[in-house]
Amino acid sequence: MSKNNSIVHYMDIAYNEAIKGINANNGGPFGAVVVRDDIPIASAHNEVLTSKDPTAHAEINAIRKASQILNSYDLSECTLYTTCEPCPMCLGAILWARIEKVYYVSTKEDARDAGFDDSHFYDILQGKVRSTKLTQIEHQDSKKLFELWKKKSDIQIY
Amino acid sequence: MSKNNSIVHYMDIAYNEAIKGINANNGGPFGAVVVRDDIPIASAHNEVLTSKDPTAHAEINAIRKASQILNSYDLSECTLYTTCEPCPMCLGAILWARIEKVYYVSTKEDARDAGFDDSHFYDILQGKVRSTKLTQIEHQDSKKLFELWKKKSDIQIY
Repeated sequence: MSKNNSIVHYMDIAYNEAIKGINANNGGPFGAVVVRDDIPIASAHNEVLTSKDPTAHAEINAIRKASQILNSYDLSECTLYTTCEPCPMCLGAILWARIEKVYYVSTKEDARDAGFDDSHFYDILQGKVRSTKLTQIEHQDSKKLFELWKKKSDIQIY
Repeated sequence: MSKNNSIVHYMDIAYNEAIKGINANNGGPFGAVVVRDDIPIASAHNEVLTSKDPTAHAEINAIRKASQILNSYDLSECTLYTTCEPCPMCLGAILWARIEKVYYVSTKEDARDAGFDDSHFYDILQGKVRSTKLTQIEHQDSKKLFELWKKKSDIQIY
């Protein structure tokens, strides 16, 4: 397969996942697949409604499945194909998983028009709006955790 | 308990979770607890290393557990106590879960000093750096998913 053909092929897999999710009423119309070395490792769709898990977006589900199949939290040789531009949560997961490349089709504006609006998430992340959500507090053991961590002889930075 | 005492009390629970995680080598030195109506619903620590799941941060784990216990993806009456400022992935999860308030102690700078650096995540989310990761492509069915979604008679926006 040419590179362009394979991109379409993997996006078809992501689309079929999304269709499955829509038909099963599992959650929003989103699908994703993690691919490594031209092999689809794990595909998934949004399952927020049936799993009752607010983190169960297509990309998160595909990443979690792929990490179990590959037995690694490091998916740095993988590409993610997703039907829609990842939200900040999913983009964070993509970055922590070190996924190298992401292809998407619909934009966050398309998602917003369908009722999935995460535009204020960006404002909160950028500190553009004063969020009443986040409050820093003092705690007597505030430095203890990182000190304990740094003192460990067997720490593994990930 | 006074409000301040209860904040310290719940943060103690989050700290004890983090200590458990450090001692068990489950992952980074982070703990969190979801509280509703002055009742701790679910506490968790980072388990990225043992679960091999890059999304298994303390906050995500606590949110996932709480959503299962409360049987809802909507945690809008809950407060999250976490030992460290949430990363973009976890903040996204907090926002999707509609958690109303978050208390944290250590900052992202403290986390960076211990080797957990997500500062470039913010740059990518803000579009400050040209990320080679994300590529939008065209797809023949690009509008189909949202059209299908909108046509459904039983859609449930979450």
